[in-house]
Amino acid sequence: MSTHKEIRLIARPDERGIGPHLFELKQPQIPQPAQGEVLIKQTHMSLDPAMIGWMHPDTESYIPPVALGDVMRSSGFGEVIASNHPDFSVGDQVMGMTGWCEYFVSDGQGINKIQPGLNPEMALSIFALPGLTATQGLFSIGKPKAGETLVVTGAAGSVGSIVGQLAKADGLRVIGVVGSQEKAEWIVNELGFDAAINYKSDNLEQQLAELTPNGIDVFFENTGGPIQHAIFERMNTFGRIVVCGMIADYTTEQPALAPNWIPMIKKRLTMQGFAMTDHFQDAPALLEKLTPYVMQGKIKYRAHTLKGLESAMDGINLFFTGDNKGKLIVEL
Amino acid sequence: MSTHKEIRLIARPDERGIGPHLFELKQPQIPQPAQGEVLIKQTHMSLDPAMIGWMHPDTESYIPPVALGDVMRSSGFGEVIASNHPDFSVGDQVMGMTGWCEYFVSDGQGINKIQPGLNPEMALSIFALPGLTATQGLFSIGKPKAGETLVVTGAAGSVGSIVGQLAKADGLRVIGVVGSQEKAEWIVNELGFDAAINYKSDNLEQQLAELTPNGIDVFFENTGGPIQHAIFERMNTFGRIVVCGMIADYTTEQPALAPNWIPMIKKRLTMQGFAMTDHFQDAPALLEKLTPYVMQGKIKYRAHTLKGLESAMDGINLFFTGDNKGKLIVEL
Repeated sequence: MSTHKEIRLIARPDERGIGPHLFELKQPQIPQPAQGEVLIKQTHMSLDPAMIGWMHPDTESYIPPVALGDVMRSSGFGEVIASNHPDFSVGDQVMGMTGWCEYFVSDGQGINKIQPGLNPEMALSIFALPGLTATQGLFSIGKPKAGETLVVTGAAGSVGSIVGQLAKADGLRVIGVVGSQEKAEWIVNELGFDAAINYKSDNLEQQLAELTPNGIDVFFENTGGPIQHAIFERMNTFGRIVVCGMIADYTTEQPALAPNWIPMIKKRLTMQGFAMTDHFQDAPALLEKLTPYVMQGKIKYRAHTLKGLESAMDGINLFFTGDNKGKLIVEL
Repeated sequence: MSTHKEIRLIARPDERGIGPHLFELKQPQIPQPAQGEVLIKQTHMSLDPAMIGWMHPDTESYIPPVALGDVMRSSGFGEVIASNHPDFSVGDQVMGMTGWCEYFVSDGQGINKIQPGLNPEMALSIFALPGLTATQGLFSIGKPKAGETLVVTGAAGSVGSIVGQLAKADGLRVIGVVGSQEKAEWIVNELGFDAAINYKSDNLEQQLAELTPNGIDVFFENTGGPIQHAIFERMNTFGRIVVCGMIADYTTEQPALAPNWIPMIKKRLTMQGFAMTDHFQDAPALLEKLTPYVMQGKIKYRAHTLKGLESAMDGINLFFTGDNKGKLIVEL
């Protein structure tokens, strides 16, 4: 029998950050499906910021951490190779919770068949975690209205880029915060954002004031970092803040403090944190909401594709450096 | 014709804080009511933390600041002395938006007749701003459920004391944060809170951990200050934070920073600021909700009564020192 590669988490992130020292590459036998199970060959694996949370031994997070010694958790795209499950046939393309491995066996829970012909990178970039997260957070918490102004951080990221395009399609003024000139140009020229701010540049307050002359109604927060204070300062009365990600603070020893709550009262703001894991049962409704925007060509994406399972171990650091250009995907 | 006293705001709060230097005492003629108007003799005036906001030249607040030279704004209780208004008769007891003055003329807007026999101090302590604010914030945002744990700051204050008693009546575990041993004893022994924490004592984190063994589901914030961080830290998944007041930060040059937002995501918290001024149209429904608790003897209060209109000028500082014992009322 032949073997395949899998990567196990063997240590928690430490002062050295995230990298190969946390992982062990194994080459076990390819597993065989029992009755009611299906064997899937993963062809594309998604890398998401949420993975960083899953590596930490944090009992308070929304999903249990990956146990030391277990295969690292992920979502991905693959093909059914063998099936003892009535709902799946050999050749089906599937997407769902997978793991850092080339082959895996599933009882079908958390795995969904995909419309034949859908590009795997498009599937993982839009119709998986990023699109579901953007749709849930923007519409349920952000409650965008035409004519309002939305600011999204991590605007060239997998979630932020979809949030901004959905809001733009609905008639909002949309400003994206990014970390490079290249990303700024991409979201404005390709995605149609009204403007971009590079948070590494100077005069953030002044740029923000010029670009949001009518203040800010919806703040979709994917990153944290100092610009949070400048955005918060410009929130309008009855503004909504969607707290989706805080990548800038996930691995700092002492996370940065946030703005004082006085404006919460003066402007009667609502702030809500959410995690997509609470809303997986709503996925069909969310996809129904999202799909028309995609069909009308209003949601563009780009994939930043790494090659080979091992590339995930270093690749995840691209979330911290911001050097990824588009949705991070590992092609196996 | 006889004169009466009124107090006008003539300066904005500065580094000297709030005190007589901001005000001017005048003795104009008692005004006369025109057709459709009513003359009211104010007998009891309410002092509320919101007044501090009204003194600042802040265009972003929920209600315009008091203009320099205008009579200072307040709510109060009084008696109709003369009426050219079809809905009011001489001798009616009324409550509503008044001002720092002994007599005033109204067209009836914002003034309501009171059930005869209702004690003015009880009316201002429960059935006015404090009770409406507590009821709106607790039920609409806090969404308390029996068996949950609620922590309220400013727990011996006019709003906090009602919030805690409402939650206690609904079967929650209720912990109050106060600033003196005397207040701690009052809320536990008289109001029936489960426990009190004096924020001036040591080991706040440890005290809070011992008193909230199952974490905190509802945080009703009236004060700000360092204990905010300790309370935020112990919020449970899907917890609710009601931001009602930030008295500790209202007059500081640089308001204290707040906790990092990572727990907003990990615990899917909701935080909302509110101001009662948005909900005055809901006052009848709020009073309908509140009254049964009062009738069943579940809402106690105490008034801290100052004598004479001039006492308001210094009296408002009691909110900062915390030396008031109960609802601040000026008896005219």
